[in-house]
Amino acid sequence: MRWSFILNIIGMLILFLGMCMLFPLFFGLYYRDQSVIPLAQSMGITLASGASLMVVFRREKVEHISHREGMAIVAVGWTAIGFFGAFPFYLGSEFSTFVDAFFESVSGFTTTGSSILTNIEAVSKGLLFWRSFIQWLGGMGIIVLSVAILPFLGVGGMQLYKAEVPSPVPDKLKPRIRDTAKILWKVYALISLVQVLFLLLGGMDLYDALCHAFTTMPTGGFSTKNASIAHFDSVYFDTVVIVFMLLAGINFSLHYQFLRGKPLAFWRDSECRFFLGTVLLLIVVVTFNIYGTVYETVGRAFRYGAFQVVSIVTTTGYATADYERWPAMSQFILLLCMFLGASAGSTGGGMKCLRVMLYLKYCYKELFSLVHPRAVKRIKIGGRAVPEDVVRSVLGFMGLYVGLFVFSTVLIAGMGVDLVTSIASVAATIGNIGPGLGMVGPTDNFAQIPYLGKWVLIWCMLLGRLEIYTVIILLVPEFWRK
Amino acid sequence: MRWSFILNIIGMLILFLGMCMLFPLFFGLYYRDQSVIPLAQSMGITLASGASLMVVFRREKVEHISHREGMAIVAVGWTAIGFFGAFPFYLGSEFSTFVDAFFESVSGFTTTGSSILTNIEAVSKGLLFWRSFIQWLGGMGIIVLSVAILPFLGVGGMQLYKAEVPSPVPDKLKPRIRDTAKILWKVYALISLVQVLFLLLGGMDLYDALCHAFTTMPTGGFSTKNASIAHFDSVYFDTVVIVFMLLAGINFSLHYQFLRGKPLAFWRDSECRFFLGTVLLLIVVVTFNIYGTVYETVGRAFRYGAFQVVSIVTTTGYATADYERWPAMSQFILLLCMFLGASAGSTGGGMKCLRVMLYLKYCYKELFSLVHPRAVKRIKIGGRAVPEDVVRSVLGFMGLYVGLFVFSTVLIAGMGVDLVTSIASVAATIGNIGPGLGMVGPTDNFAQIPYLGKWVLIWCMLLGRLEIYTVIILLVPEFWRK
Repeated sequence: MRWSFILNIIGMLILFLGMCMLFPLFFGLYYRDQSVIPLAQSMGITLASGASLMVVFRREKVEHISHREGMAIVAVGWTAIGFFGAFPFYLGSEFSTFVDAFFESVSGFTTTGSSILTNIEAVSKGLLFWRSFIQWLGGMGIIVLSVAILPFLGVGGMQLYKAEVPSPVPDKLKPRIRDTAKILWKVYALISLVQVLFLLLGGMDLYDALCHAFTTMPTGGFSTKNASIAHFDSVYFDTVVIVFMLLAGINFSLHYQFLRGKPLAFWRDSECRFFLGTVLLLIVVVTFNIYGTVYETVGRAFRYGAFQVVSIVTTTGYATADYERWPAMSQFILLLCMFLGASAGSTGGGMKCLRVMLYLKYCYKELFSLVHPRAVKRIKIGGRAVPEDVVRSVLGFMGLYVGLFVFSTVLIAGMGVDLVTSIASVAATIGNIGPGLGMVGPTDNFAQIPYLGKWVLIWCMLLGRLEIYTVIILLVPEFWRK
Repeated sequence: MRWSFILNIIGMLILFLGMCMLFPLFFGLYYRDQSVIPLAQSMGITLASGASLMVVFRREKVEHISHREGMAIVAVGWTAIGFFGAFPFYLGSEFSTFVDAFFESVSGFTTTGSSILTNIEAVSKGLLFWRSFIQWLGGMGIIVLSVAILPFLGVGGMQLYKAEVPSPVPDKLKPRIRDTAKILWKVYALISLVQVLFLLLGGMDLYDALCHAFTTMPTGGFSTKNASIAHFDSVYFDTVVIVFMLLAGINFSLHYQFLRGKPLAFWRDSECRFFLGTVLLLIVVVTFNIYGTVYETVGRAFRYGAFQVVSIVTTTGYATADYERWPAMSQFILLLCMFLGASAGSTGGGMKCLRVMLYLKYCYKELFSLVHPRAVKRIKIGGRAVPEDVVRSVLGFMGLYVGLFVFSTVLIAGMGVDLVTSIASVAATIGNIGPGLGMVGPTDNFAQIPYLGKWVLIWCMLLGRLEIYTVIILLVPEFWRK
C-alpha cells in the first residue's frame, strides 16, 4: 500500500473541494448573508489542508493502481471530503455540534439527503447552496465510482455492467477513468442544465432552480424549502421532478448512447426495462391503495403516489406528501423501494435493480433445477450468460447489505429509538434515500437521533454509497497484511 | 406423476390421523366434556375418507419414488392432514368459520402455534388435547421430512446434513425413511417422556404435563392456558421448558449420537455450537437491554429474557412475558430470531442456523476474494468443504424465503392491517413461531386478522414448514410438464 501516493491524490481532491467553495461564496456575497465568513474560513482551511497534503506527500509516478489502493482511495477520500465539506456548516450558526455538521455533509456527498436541519428556510442562501452543490459533486463522484472504478475492482458484481463508452483500454485504470468520467460528466451536466431550464420555464427563480437540479440529478433530495417539493404545490414541477428523478435513476451510459443517436438504448437494456416496469407496477399498486383512503380522486392519488414511489425508488427522497399517513401497504412498498434502489451506473443508491434481478433469476434457476436436477441452466442478463464470479459477488453483496442493515438497526434500537424509526432510519441511510418512517419521516428530520446514533448513520451512508465492500473491507485483517 | 400411488399414500396418512383421534376422545370421555361428539364425528369422517382413498387408489408396487412425486406427497399430504385435523375444531362450538378451524389445525401440524382462540381455557379438555397432540404429530412429520426426505430431494441445501444413523442404503428412499424415522421417533418420544416426568415432578397435573410436552418437543407452543407458561409463574417450570425447547432446537441425530454414548456429539457439530453460541449471546444482550428498563433485578431480566429468546429462536412461541413492552432493541432481536430459527434436523422452523452460517461464510469469502482475487477459498462447515450445488441451493432458499416473506407482507398490509402487525404476522407464520408483534403479539391472537389474511398466513405456515421449495415448486409450470 503506497500511502504517500494515496494521500497525494486525497490532497488533490481536498484542494478541488476548496476551490468548489467559491460557488456558494459567490451566492453568499450576492445575497449579502451571514454565510460569507464561515465559507471563506472553510475555503481557507480546506485549500491549505489539501495543499499541505500534496506538498508533504509528493506525487509518485505510478503505473498501476492495485485493488487495495483503489479501495483505500475511495473509502478514505469520501470520508475526507465529507469532513472538509462539513466546515461551512460547523462554522456557520445553524449546527450546534460538529457531528451534526459532519452528518449533513456526508448526507450531501453520499447524495443521501437525510437532514439535521429543523428549519431549512432560516438557513442563509450561501450555505443552502453549498448544501445542494455538494450533492451534485457527490453525484459526479458516484458516476466515476460506479462506471469506472468499481467494475475494475470487481466489487459487488459491478464488473457485470461495463460502460460501453469509447476508450478501449480495459487494463489500465487511469486513462479509462479519465475518459469515461469526462464523457459521463458531460451527460450529467447536460441533463442538469436541461432540468434547470425546465424549472425556470415553470417560473422557479434561478437560485431554487439550480439548487433543485443539483439535488435531483444525483438523486440527493436536499431541498431549500421546509416542505420539500410540496412547497411549490404545482403539477408542472411535480412532473418535471418525476421525469428527471427517473432519468437520474437510469444507467448514465444509456443516456450517452441515446445522445449518440441510439434511441432504443433504454429499451434494449434489460435492467432499464426491469427498473421502469417495477416503478410502473408499484405506482399502480400505491395509487390504487391510497385512492379512496387518503385522496378522493384517482388523479390526486396518482400524482402523489407516482411522486413518492419515484422519489424513494430512485433514492432521491423529495416529498410532496406525508406518506406516513398512507395505508400500511403503501408504507411497506416504500420501505421495500429503499432496499431495491435504482439502476447500477446511475446516481441512485439501494441494492440496485441489476442485483435484485440477478437474485430473482438465481432463485428461479434453483427451483428449476429441483425439477430437472441434471439440466444445466445459466443465468442470463440481456441475453448473455453471467459469469459465475459475478453471480457470487452479487449474492455476497446482498448478504452483506442485509447483514449490515440488521447490525446497524440493532445498534440504533439499542440507543432507545423506537422499532419503526430504527429500521427505517438505517434503511434510508444505507440506501442513500434521505427520509424514512417514524421519527425520521418525510415531515421530520434526523435531529432527534441520539449522538452516537448519528455516527452509526454516517457510517451507513458511507457504506451504502461506496457499495459496502469498499468500506467493510477495511475491517478485514487480510486487507492490511503483507 | 403416478397420482394413484400418491393418493394411496395420502389415504394411509389420513387413516392414521383418524386413529390418532382416539387419544383426545379418551380425554373427552374421561372429563365427560362436550368434545366427545365432535371428536367422534371427525374420527368417523376421517377414517372413512382415508379408507375410501385407499380403496379407490389401489397400492402399486413402486420401486423408486421420483423427486416430483416426493414433493407432491409432502405438499398435498400436509395440506390434507391439516384439512382433516380441522374437523374436531369446526364441529365443536369454539370456531365460527371453517377457515378459523383450518388455521388452528395447520398452525398445529406445522408446529407454528399461532392461535385464533381468544379464550383458550374455555375450550373443552378433549379439544385442547387434540390441539396439543397435533403439534406432537406434526413434529414427528418434520423429523422424517428434514432428516430423511428433504436431503434426498436436494431441497434447500438439506442434503448437506446427512443423518448419521445406520441404514447404509443411500439410494433407496423407502427403507432409509423407515429406519431413520423409527430411530429418531424413539429419541423424540423418549425426550418427550422425560419432559413429562420433569413437569410432573414440579407438581403439574398429568393432563397439562402431557399437553405441554407435546407442544415443547415439536417447538409448537400451543398452551392449555391463556397466559401460556406465564400462567404457572414458576422458575422451575420456566427452566424445564427452556431446557427442553433448546433440546428440541438441536438436530435430533445429535441426540441419537449422544444416547449412543458419544457425549461430545453436540460440541463437535459446528451448527450446534453456532446455535447455542448465538442463543447465549442474544440472551446476554436482551438481559442487559431489559434490566433497569423493564425489570429491576438482573435475575428477573435474565429469567424472562432467556425464556423469550429461547422460545422465539427455537420457534416454539411460548410466552412468560409481554415482550411488546420491552425496548425496541429486544423486540428487534426477537424479530430477527424469527428469521434465524433453530438447527436443521430439529423440529424448529425459520431459515435454520446452518443456512445462515453458510451465508455468513459465503459473504466473508467474497470479501476475502476481493483482497486476494486469485486465491481459491472453499466454504467449509465442520472442517469439510461444502459442495457448490449445496451452497447454491442454500442461497436460493434464502432468497425465496425473503421474497415470499415480502410478497405475503404486502398482501396482509393490503388488507388494512398495520405495518408492524403485517411484518410480524408473516415472519411468525412463515418461520413457524406462533406469536408476533402488534395485533398478534404474545398477549393477543390471530382472530382479528381479516378472512383472506388467514388464508395467506395458512399458506405461509405451510411454506415455512415444508422448506419453501416443496410448496412453491407446485407453482412452477415445469413441474407439471412431461
